[in-house]
Amino acid sequence: MLSIFSDEHFMKEAFKEAQKAFDEDEVPVGAIIVCDNKIIARAHNMTERLNDVTAHAEMLAFTSATDYLGGKYLNECTLYVTLEPCVMCGGAAYWTQLKKVVYGASDEKRGFSKLSKNILHPKTEIISGVQSVICGEILTQFFERKRG
Amino acid sequence: MLSIFSDEHFMKEAFKEAQKAFDEDEVPVGAIIVCDNKIIARAHNMTERLNDVTAHAEMLAFTSATDYLGGKYLNECTLYVTLEPCVMCGGAAYWTQLKKVVYGASDEKRGFSKLSKNILHPKTEIISGVQSVICGEILTQFFERKRG
Repeated sequence: MLSIFSDEHFMKEAFKEAQKAFDEDEVPVGAIIVCDNKIIARAHNMTERLNDVTAHAEMLAFTSATDYLGGKYLNECTLYVTLEPCVMCGGAAYWTQLKKVVYGASDEKRGFSKLSKNILHPKTEIISGVQSVICGEILTQFFERKRG
Repeated sequence: MLSIFSDEHFMKEAFKEAQKAFDEDEVPVGAIIVCDNKIIARAHNMTERLNDVTAHAEMLAFTSATDYLGGKYLNECTLYVTLEPCVMCGGAAYWTQLKKVVYGASDEKRGFSKLSKNILHPKTEIISGVQSVICGEILTQFFERKRG
């Protein structure tokens, strides 16, 4: 059984968001933001619905979390996201001064870490590969359905 | 006299947006998006007003332009922005498949080009240093006023 405060537990919550995206025919990526072991924001990719390529799960989650906290910075918060953030989302994470990023599947094409680790804030801790199998499989299923 | 379709002309329009930001006590960066020599989006930095570190002029302009065009891509559009885009905005520009980026002042700290030219889409043309003096001076003035 997963501890309710473990990275695995919170990633499963992010995965629930990815499933919502899948059901809405959006590229299935989900994100949550956790502060003091409490989920303060949930979001999934909405690029199709909003007709906006910047509407990635992480971007929506950052805006939602800062709105909730009333401050611009997330330096006490952890982002859980099912796919490695892209350069845009990594660059946004820098501005939020995020405490920690935990991601599931790696993105070999556009993942921020493929370009430079320096995209994130120097104080941001990075953990990768949490629940990576389910986080990756839902993406594979999505693109197979698209091609199918 | 500036040609009405020159990069200098359009940068002056982006600069007007930076001035609006200055007047609102926001870091003075302005952006416009041009398609077929027509300005289809105008925006300035609103990170303070929106309490959102992702509300850079370019991000707001991208969202506004795609909303106007009704499509997700800006591959026939040029972004004019008074300051070199940061990594986040460069990463967003990648997703929009922007045709051309023209920027004024360079950003020695967080400019995308300091990290990697590959942040933008391979098809995106880059022009720098247009009206760079006025674009840079308004930032200097802003931070001098802040230090007060």
